[in-house]
Amino acid sequence: MAARRLDGTAWAARIREETRPRVERFTARAGRPPGLAVVLAGAHPASEIYVRNKIATVREHGCQGELFRLSETASLDDALALVSRLNGDDRVDAILVQSPLPPGMGPDAEQRVFDTIDPAKDVDGFHPINVGLLVQKRPALVACTPLGCAELLDREQIPLSGRHAVVIGRSDIVGKPMALLLLHRDATVTICHSRTRDLPEVCRSADVLVAAIGRAGFVTPAFVKPGATVIDVGINRLTDPADVARCFAPDSLRARQFAQKGSVLVGDVHPDVEAVAGAMTPVPGGVGPLTIAMVLRNTVTAAELRVGASA
Amino acid sequence: MAARRLDGTAWAARIREETRPRVERFTARAGRPPGLAVVLAGAHPASEIYVRNKIATVREHGCQGELFRLSETASLDDALALVSRLNGDDRVDAILVQSPLPPGMGPDAEQRVFDTIDPAKDVDGFHPINVGLLVQKRPALVACTPLGCAELLDREQIPLSGRHAVVIGRSDIVGKPMALLLLHRDATVTICHSRTRDLPEVCRSADVLVAAIGRAGFVTPAFVKPGATVIDVGINRLTDPADVARCFAPDSLRARQFAQKGSVLVGDVHPDVEAVAGAMTPVPGGVGPLTIAMVLRNTVTAAELRVGASA
Repeated sequence: MAARRLDGTAWAARIREETRPRVERFTARAGRPPGLAVVLAGAHPASEIYVRNKIATVREHGCQGELFRLSETASLDDALALVSRLNGDDRVDAILVQSPLPPGMGPDAEQRVFDTIDPAKDVDGFHPINVGLLVQKRPALVACTPLGCAELLDREQIPLSGRHAVVIGRSDIVGKPMALLLLHRDATVTICHSRTRDLPEVCRSADVLVAAIGRAGFVTPAFVKPGATVIDVGINRLTDPADVARCFAPDSLRARQFAQKGSVLVGDVHPDVEAVAGAMTPVPGGVGPLTIAMVLRNTVTAAELRVGASA
Repeated sequence: MAARRLDGTAWAARIREETRPRVERFTARAGRPPGLAVVLAGAHPASEIYVRNKIATVREHGCQGELFRLSETASLDDALALVSRLNGDDRVDAILVQSPLPPGMGPDAEQRVFDTIDPAKDVDGFHPINVGLLVQKRPALVACTPLGCAELLDREQIPLSGRHAVVIGRSDIVGKPMALLLLHRDATVTICHSRTRDLPEVCRSADVLVAAIGRAGFVTPAFVKPGATVIDVGINRLTDPADVARCFAPDSLRARQFAQKGSVLVGDVHPDVEAVAGAMTPVPGGVGPLTIAMVLRNTVTAAELRVGASA
C-alpha cells in the first residue's frame, strides 16, 4: 500500500492565502505593507532561484519584497553595514540573508551577519536569542523549514503527543529547531546524526521520522516502521545516472524525466519508502513550498509585532 | 554486581581546586576578586540552604560572594531594580537569582527577572541568549546542573559518541540543556517526559540515562539496561514511612537514618538500580556538589570574560 501523500504544495497555498487578511489589516494600520529585505551576496545559481521565489511570494501576497545585492568580492564589513542599515530602516520588518555567503567573507561570516540582524526582524530565526526563546517555548521567530514541517504535521493532524519522533540531522537550521518543535508538541524526541550507531534500528522505532541530512535517497525502507509518517527535508539534484538508477526504477516517470533533462530531484528519503510509510512528503512538492510560505508568514508576523511594539 | 559509584563530591572538590589559580590570576589582574551576587527573595528554607552553600563555596575559593535579600512582600519591580543595579555594578561579575520567587511577584516574575540579568553575568545560564548560544554550540554560560553532569561524564570518561543517551525530563533548567550537552558530545539523544509512551522501554535502550523529573525513586531497575550509566539529578526528601519503605530495605542504613531523623534523601532513581547499572551517581553526593562547583566555575568564567572584554 502506498503512503498517503502529504501535499506540501497544497498546504503552502492555503497558508499563504491565510496571510492575506493579516497583510491587509497591517497595511491599513501602518500605511505601508509588511516589508522583507533579502540580501544576496555573490553569484550562486541555487541561491538566485531561492531568493527569487521568496521575493515573488511575498510580493504576490501584498508585501514589499526587495533584493539587496552584494558582489562576490564584497567584504564582511560591507555585509554588516548593509544589515545595520536594514535594521535601522523602519519600512523593513524582516531581513533574510541568503546562505551561503561568499567564502572571501571568512569562515565565521554567516554567524557574524546573522548575529547582527535585529532579532525582531530575524525572519529566518537564526539569531541566538530567537533560538533561546524557541527552546523556552516562548514567542519567537522560528526557522522556516522546521516551522513548515511542524505546520504540516499539525494540519495533517499527525498524532505527536507521546509518540516517538526521530530527527536525522542536527543542524542549527533544521535538525535542532525541528526537535524542539516536536518536543513542544509532546513527542518523545530522538536526534540522530552521523555518529549514531544502528541508525536504521533507531529510525525504525519512530512514529514520525524527519530526514534532514542532505544525502540523496539515504533513508531506505529499512529505516521505516510500517505506517510511520516520514517528512523529507532533503532536496538533492541527481546528475549521475548511477545515482538515478539507485533511486528510481528504469521505467519510472522520474527516470524518464532524467533521461530527458539530465537531472532529477530526490529527497533524503528513498522513493521505495513510499511502500512502507503511512504518510510521506514528496520531493519536490513537500517541505520546499512550506518553507517559502513560512518566509511569508514570518515576515507578516515580524511586521505585526514591530508595529504592535511601537504602537 | 553493584554499580561503580560516580563520586560527585570528589570530582566537585577537584573542580573547585582547579579554579584557585584562575581566581588568583584574575584577582592580580583586576585588582579585585571575581564577584558573585546572589539574590534571595522571601523566606524559603531550602533556598536558604542552597544560597548559603553557593556563597560559602565561592568565598572559600577566593571570590567575593554577597547575598542581597528581598522581603517576601517585595514587588517584581523591586527585584528588577535590584538586578539592574547589580548589572551596572562593575564589581559584580555574576548574578544568581534563587528560585522560587515569592508568588506575590506574579506568575512570570522569574522569566522577567532572568531576562533582565546581563547575559554576561548570567551565572545560571537561563537568559535566552545564553540558551541560544548553547544550542549553536558557541561559548556561553550554561546552566550549572546539566553542566555539572556533563563534566562528570567527561571526567569519568563515560563513552558518549554514538551512544544512546536518554534524558527523562524536559525542563529549561536541566532536561533541555542536558540534552544539548549530550548532543554536542556526539551522543544520539532522546528526551522523554510525562507524555512519553512505554517510558521504561525507551529508557532501557539508553547507554547513558539522566533522570531529572523530581519524583522519588521513580526510575526502577525496569528502566535500566544492564551496565548503563545512570545520572540521578533528583534530590527528594522523604518524610512518609511508606515512601521510605518503597525505596529502602527495612534493615538498611538509610532506613535506620530515617528512623532516627524523620527524613531521608532519595534521588529520582530507585536505590535498587545500583544492582543493574554499570555506573551511577549517589544521592546525596552525586550531582548536587557538582552543581555548586559549576556556580563557582561559571562565576570565574564570567569574571574572566568580562575583564577580558573590557581590557
